[in-house]
Amino acid sequence: MCVSFAHLQGSSVPREKNVTDPFSLLSIQVHYWEHGAIGQFVVKEPMVLGHESSGVISKVGSAVTTLKVGDRVALEPGVPCRRCEPCKSGKYNLCVHMVFAATPPHDGTLAKYYVLPEDFCYKLPDHLSLQEGALVEPLSVAVHIVKQGEVRPGNSVVVFGAGPVGLLCCAVAKAFGASKVIAVDIQPTRLEFAEKYIGMPTFVPGKVSPLENAARLKEQHNLGPGADVVLDASGAEASVHTGIHVLRTGGTYVQGGMGRDEITFPIMAACTKELNIKGSFRYGSGDYKLAVELIASGKVNVKGLITGVVKFEDAEQAFKDVKAGKGIKTLIAGVQE
Amino acid sequence: MCVSFAHLQGSSVPREKNVTDPFSLLSIQVHYWEHGAIGQFVVKEPMVLGHESSGVISKVGSAVTTLKVGDRVALEPGVPCRRCEPCKSGKYNLCVHMVFAATPPHDGTLAKYYVLPEDFCYKLPDHLSLQEGALVEPLSVAVHIVKQGEVRPGNSVVVFGAGPVGLLCCAVAKAFGASKVIAVDIQPTRLEFAEKYIGMPTFVPGKVSPLENAARLKEQHNLGPGADVVLDASGAEASVHTGIHVLRTGGTYVQGGMGRDEITFPIMAACTKELNIKGSFRYGSGDYKLAVELIASGKVNVKGLITGVVKFEDAEQAFKDVKAGKGIKTLIAGVQE
Amino acid sequence: MCVSFAHLQGSSVPREKNVTDPFSLLSIQVHYWEHGAIGQFVVKEPMVLGHESSGVISKVGSAVTTLKVGDRVALEPGVPCRRCEPCKSGKYNLCVHMVFAATPPHDGTLAKYYVLPEDFCYKLPDHLSLQEGALVEPLSVAVHIVKQGEVRPGNSVVVFGAGPVGLLCCAVAKAFGASKVIAVDIQPTRLEFAEKYIGMPTFVPGKVSPLENAARLKEQHNLGPGADVVLDASGAEASVHTGIHVLRTGGTYVQGGMGRDEITFPIMAACTKELNIKGSFRYGSGDYKLAVELIASGKVNVKGLITGVVKFEDAEQAFKDVKAGKGIKTLIAGVQE
Amino acid sequence: MCVSFAHLQGSSVPREKNVTDPFSLLSIQVHYWEHGAIGQFVVKEPMVLGHESSGVISKVGSAVTTLKVGDRVALEPGVPCRRCEPCKSGKYNLCVHMVFAATPPHDGTLAKYYVLPEDFCYKLPDHLSLQEGALVEPLSVAVHIVKQGEVRPGNSVVVFGAGPVGLLCCAVAKAFGASKVIAVDIQPTRLEFAEKYIGMPTFVPGKVSPLENAARLKEQHNLGPGADVVLDASGAEASVHTGIHVLRTGGTYVQGGMGRDEITFPIMAACTKELNIKGSFRYGSGDYKLAVELIASGKVNVKGLITGVVKFEDAEQAFKDVKAGKGIKTLIAGVQE
Repeated sequence: MCVSFAHLQGSSVPREKNVTDPFSLLSIQVHYWEHGAIGQFVVKEPMVLGHESSGVISKVGSAVTTLKVGDRVALEPGVPCRRCEPCKSGKYNLCVHMVFAATPPHDGTLAKYYVLPEDFCYKLPDHLSLQEGALVEPLSVAVHIVKQGEVRPGNSVVVFGAGPVGLLCCAVAKAFGASKVIAVDIQPTRLEFAEKYIGMPTFVPGKVSPLENAARLKEQHNLGPGADVVLDASGAEASVHTGIHVLRTGGTYVQGGMGRDEITFPIMAACTKELNIKGSFRYGSGDYKLAVELIASGKVNVKGLITGVVKFEDAEQAFKDVKAGKGIKTLIAGVQE
Repeated sequence: MCVSFAHLQGSSVPREKNVTDPFSLLSIQVHYWEHGAIGQFVVKEPMVLGHESSGVISKVGSAVTTLKVGDRVALEPGVPCRRCEPCKSGKYNLCVHMVFAATPPHDGTLAKYYVLPEDFCYKLPDHLSLQEGALVEPLSVAVHIVKQGEVRPGNSVVVFGAGPVGLLCCAVAKAFGASKVIAVDIQPTRLEFAEKYIGMPTFVPGKVSPLENAARLKEQHNLGPGADVVLDASGAEASVHTGIHVLRTGGTYVQGGMGRDEITFPIMAACTKELNIKGSFRYGSGDYKLAVELIASGKVNVKGLITGVVKFEDAEQAFKDVKAGKGIKTLIAGVQE
Repeated sequence: MCVSFAHLQGSSVPREKNVTDPFSLLSIQVHYWEHGAIGQFVVKEPMVLGHESSGVISKVGSAVTTLKVGDRVALEPGVPCRRCEPCKSGKYNLCVHMVFAATPPHDGTLAKYYVLPEDFCYKLPDHLSLQEGALVEPLSVAVHIVKQGEVRPGNSVVVFGAGPVGLLCCAVAKAFGASKVIAVDIQPTRLEFAEKYIGMPTFVPGKVSPLENAARLKEQHNLGPGADVVLDASGAEASVHTGIHVLRTGGTYVQGGMGRDEITFPIMAACTKELNIKGSFRYGSGDYKLAVELIASGKVNVKGLITGVVKFEDAEQAFKDVKAGKGIKTLIAGVQE
Repeated sequence: MCVSFAHLQGSSVPREKNVTDPFSLLSIQVHYWEHGAIGQFVVKEPMVLGHESSGVISKVGSAVTTLKVGDRVALEPGVPCRRCEPCKSGKYNLCVHMVFAATPPHDGTLAKYYVLPEDFCYKLPDHLSLQEGALVEPLSVAVHIVKQGEVRPGNSVVVFGAGPVGLLCCAVAKAFGASKVIAVDIQPTRLEFAEKYIGMPTFVPGKVSPLENAARLKEQHNLGPGADVVLDASGAEASVHTGIHVLRTGGTYVQGGMGRDEITFPIMAACTKELNIKGSFRYGSGDYKLAVELIASGKVNVKGLITGVVKFEDAEQAFKDVKAGKGIKTLIAGVQE
């Protein structure tokens, strides 16, 4: 869950030849705000938050050819080095020298101006709003998870966790042609939202063993020998176990949600069913482009996830609300100068 | 570790059109012998053991075209249904109706005669012995693990566990063009064997954390950002952890070894490094054929793993020795009738 | 183009344990009817035509578990040996011992009863008609072509040839998430049909060079550096050339349409653009299942392709009409006994 | 065929932060020398030739961390933009803004000093000579072709054309684990060289049809249903045809050799055998690194291809000799200042 901020015009500093100066809808991370750290990334100095952003180009460098002042863009907030082995082999999300907005020590996008290379700004079609543009970021997270899951037409997909990323995973899996997508969450209110959001079938795990929950899930949703793909957007140990057990032999499991560093894991089931288990980290080659397209074509509705827009002055309250579990996505609206 | 048995001629019952009647070098599973069960597979009635076998064709069905009486063959001991989805999609090792030798309730190959379809008998080239033929089975296990690991020329590969399957994984990874293959085991004597067997570099984990062991391993063997591939043939929790931590981002981990059903697992490292984690179950399409070829071409030496051959009458002693950790591979020699 | 035939009840001969006895909607090949041969396949004796069929189970063998008398099924008309290397590696459409309906010397499905293994009969959901069932076959051809094309969400796809298979390729590519699908044909009336059928954009090649047509196609449809995927369902030399030239570097080309054995081919363009060029032959693992699902879910409309249904007695006239280029798909309706 | 030039020390101009100043062994293209054009690339102004080069670092930029003055390196002569879609998806060899040495309008490496980014200079291990370093370039071409061919352990591979690239393809295919590699050429003297070079089996096509040559090739070399992979390094129409016909169903064909823009092509055989046909263009992610490793590990011997070394003053004679078909690889040796 995130809160976001829409920003006003200003001026910008060129960086190399690729310069953009966005108006921004910026999202900030409740986790950093609350804890000051996520895993190995520790905030040591004051840091600007925000990495879910859209904006308007206010200035371009002399070599920029595809963007002009006034263009409305979604911002991909992580710029790789373009030179290391992951970068050159098509996995720039794994770049070892990544500069990522609001990941210490780099400031985030919750600012009036933000400088990005041309190829990390994605022009929004006219019929898309800046609010939708700000949600390209979480949608790209979901796109990457679904790609990692190698979801193919006809697949059955189970998604654990019905927060924003989980819901977007459901929507993307459908857009990828999955014939069955089932949302799983322990909070019935979230699943009610999910049903209204894209009318997908849901499952509430019972207070039984993961094996038993997996069996119920298979039976209730006619999954036969098991699901083809499981996408975890919850990070919860119980979800991981149920997910592994609900897969068919040879199925694919993607760990998208972040949770504890170490958990108990049913490794023999994973081994004897010869599962493919993958991590999913941020987004990479082609993900942002596809996310914009999925919104533009109407295949994924991100507007439906926006449960509130607050003024910049009320940002702190927004953080508190998100922490308290209110709403799905809260945007922080910028003020025109 | 396994013991094996070489068998004598006899007569056979045809099965469909594909019939072979092997002389056999047959291996038997110490685990079933000792515990009467492996995971979900429980021995309820007396069962013939043995699934690592070679033999001589004693009879063929009328439709058999590629084999004749007297041919020396390695036996692939699991026959799939050929009709389920895994079978038809190229993953017959995941067949839901598999009939596998010495997996309850099916008798194993430690018998005078054994009936197999033509396409599960692999003719041995003249210069290969029946003893080598019996080791095609564990070599196929290693081939499948290495294939699951997608080992490519130039890769760095770390193999945990220097038992027979681990050693064969090392040899196969080299044959697949890996430029660095490192064997890891906590028993120095096993690593000494490994060094003599194929002169590979080794690593003995210290009594430190998996993260620290992974760091030492990277440094001692110049693995830079980490290994490309980890193959676990140990099933030990500590190996799994060290293996996950020694991988580079985007690396591949294969769980080949069997251990406890559930273990503690460093899931966040797997997620943020976007690892590919795979199970490996038995062997499938093309594995046996490639295993025979690797022996025939001299790329993999299986003779070097045979540390003893016992007479059939001494089979029980062989089981006891294996259980006590003596030797790498003990074969049970058959007696000519 | 095909004509089809709906058939009446009768009795059947069991084959192994898998037996079905269909009522059938059967299609017959105008080509065999007219020429008596397709490429290497030459009709030497009287042969029953028909391979696009649906029907009703009239009898089942004792081992059949998933079908019962009265079930309505689509028939996959090629039964592989299940034992050769292609079969065991997941490519049974390349089986070297394939028995394919109405491919000499095997009789086709245009018969009252037809015997098939259980796993080659696909149960039709209640809301699907037998007529739709008969079109699962050409749809499976299109599914296989699109799979060969590795069409992914967001791709731009150009389909050459707007006959039944081409139109189905367009529909399947959309169902696979392609963001742009363009139908190309030299006959404007066919493209008019295409536009009505699934509202897709079209292109009529001009009387200019393939390079020039490719340039026009890119410009008219905003394909930027070129299309991601080209699917040829025409078999025409001019289409092949234009298709190769309209692809972006690294794009994928699938030859689905059959034409002359040898043509002039722009091999240097294919080489320096590092294209992936693939054949597509019939259908294989999972294709029929997915085709049924695409119809059942409403993602692909096959009814819209049926331009006529004739009585069995009028079958010869139907052949003549199809040969004369009338209609898209003509079905031959069976007569209840 | 190429001639090469070893160069002397000097000074260099920094470029961005990545600067190297090589001593060079430089190869020049006879084709440009003779014709002034290759396909779309036309020489309009005087141009320095050379793109197969090694050298010694004479100066480094301030941000360079992995290289120092005096390091001996192989030079990858094409620097991509790092920003276009092919670059970011792992296919920088298909970069639309590539700057490639000696491809008009860019000067080549046959110069005293050459400036390259750090990550396109590959440090040579101590036991490798600069002469071997100059041959990393053609070896990388072969590595890329073999990778495109997805050559796997156990595969049978047929290579058409026994010039330098063809011979290197043979050597690389063996290093990738191919169990059978057959060199095909119409010049027996080249095949004699091939046999001496890496003792591989050979085939001289007869004056018969490609189908007949393919049949002979299969029979002489026990290829059963056909070869798994064909790599064409000849560009000759007859080779292409024989190559397509010698493949098994589902096999892979790579067009590595350059020839006429358009040729007659057996498209129906490619289609019904469902072949994968690929271009191969230069080299990309990981190819240079692997090429250095293959030489360093002794898996590929490039020294054996050097049939002559001439002084810089004799370069023109070298060009004439190469044009006349003398030798395999002639190097032009530089003169120390």
